[in-house]
Amino acid sequence: MKAVTDYPVHDLIATRWSPYSFANRTVSDDDLRSLFEAARWAASSYNEQPWSYILAKKEDAAEFERLLSCLVEPNQVWARFASALALGISSLNFARDKKPNRAAVHDLGLAAGSLLLEATSRGLAIHQMIGILPDKARELYSIPEGCEPMTAIAIGYAGVQNDLPENVRTRDAARRPRKQLKEFVFGGKWGVPSKLV
Amino acid sequence: MKAVTDYPVHDLIATRWSPYSFANRTVSDDDLRSLFEAARWAASSYNEQPWSYILAKKEDAAEFERLLSCLVEPNQVWARFASALALGISSLNFARDKKPNRAAVHDLGLAAGSLLLEATSRGLAIHQMIGILPDKARELYSIPEGCEPMTAIAIGYAGVQNDLPENVRTRDAARRPRKQLKEFVFGGKWGVPSKLV
Repeated sequence: MKAVTDYPVHDLIATRWSPYSFANRTVSDDDLRSLFEAARWAASSYNEQPWSYILAKKEDAAEFERLLSCLVEPNQVWARFASALALGISSLNFARDKKPNRAAVHDLGLAAGSLLLEATSRGLAIHQMIGILPDKARELYSIPEGCEPMTAIAIGYAGVQNDLPENVRTRDAARRPRKQLKEFVFGGKWGVPSKLV
Repeated sequence: MKAVTDYPVHDLIATRWSPYSFANRTVSDDDLRSLFEAARWAASSYNEQPWSYILAKKEDAAEFERLLSCLVEPNQVWARFASALALGISSLNFARDKKPNRAAVHDLGLAAGSLLLEATSRGLAIHQMIGILPDKARELYSIPEGCEPMTAIAIGYAGVQNDLPENVRTRDAARRPRKQLKEFVFGGKWGVPSKLV
């Protein structure tokens, strides 16, 4: 399932993908710790580190169900097979003066990029979702005002999962297409491809 | 300048950092293309790929100055020594139905994470900035409504740059501290550290 790229990229980028089907296999605590350690070392504007996570492992069944209930139903269908779930939460205001941090959501994405890379390097697979119920998460976990539940993160090993409806399982069959570089790398003016590409 | 981590992470994560001082050394077109190719293969919500870039290489002096002028002045001081600059722009609405894409800014961050990893693997250094002048960028490059200039990206080789004011240059001397995992990986309730950490 390695990406066929137009220009060479690091193997961890070409092999990363977001499966819908997870194997029945537990991710170790050591691996999980290293995923969040990777997020920890992401860059952030003013070193604010505006990311937080709520984590639930499948072996803590009640906690796992609680976190699963914060996903929209179409995501619950497949995400329940992951070994662990996490909510990704962005602190929208600077800790020091409560002013809005324009980079807050962007930097949660940066941290996710770091976590994804770490996971890929360990043979794990991650599938992030924007389809969550932020208000429900806020209530269930007492997430304070100014902190926005943004994403859910399914963590596991990719693999065949026969209990999944076929229309979900078969989504894993193909790499999703990408825009060409000339469609999004511009030079001099919006919409004009850079000479580079 | 490798990070001293509490738990093991991939070398590309531990060695990535954002220098203020860039060497007088040109980044090749091949390298630049692979950086944006890496961004291209990032994950995104509904595969929307809501990221675009405007790129200016230092050898195109007029273009480089134009892009530099979109940074806040304190960033111009050091970013002018980079080999290339790019603006990172997020398309806030879905292309297909113009509805707001809640993941748009997050996914620009994800793409940046991929670009950063690719750069690190090539011995390059990246310093992202939120300190830009979005309205000026919008005007200079005819960036359409619904597309938000979010970040600037300085691309180059880290190195000593004696033309930099000392108070800027010396910022490279130390790794910036990070929160502990127990400060941002929670379980069951906001603020309660996960048993994992």
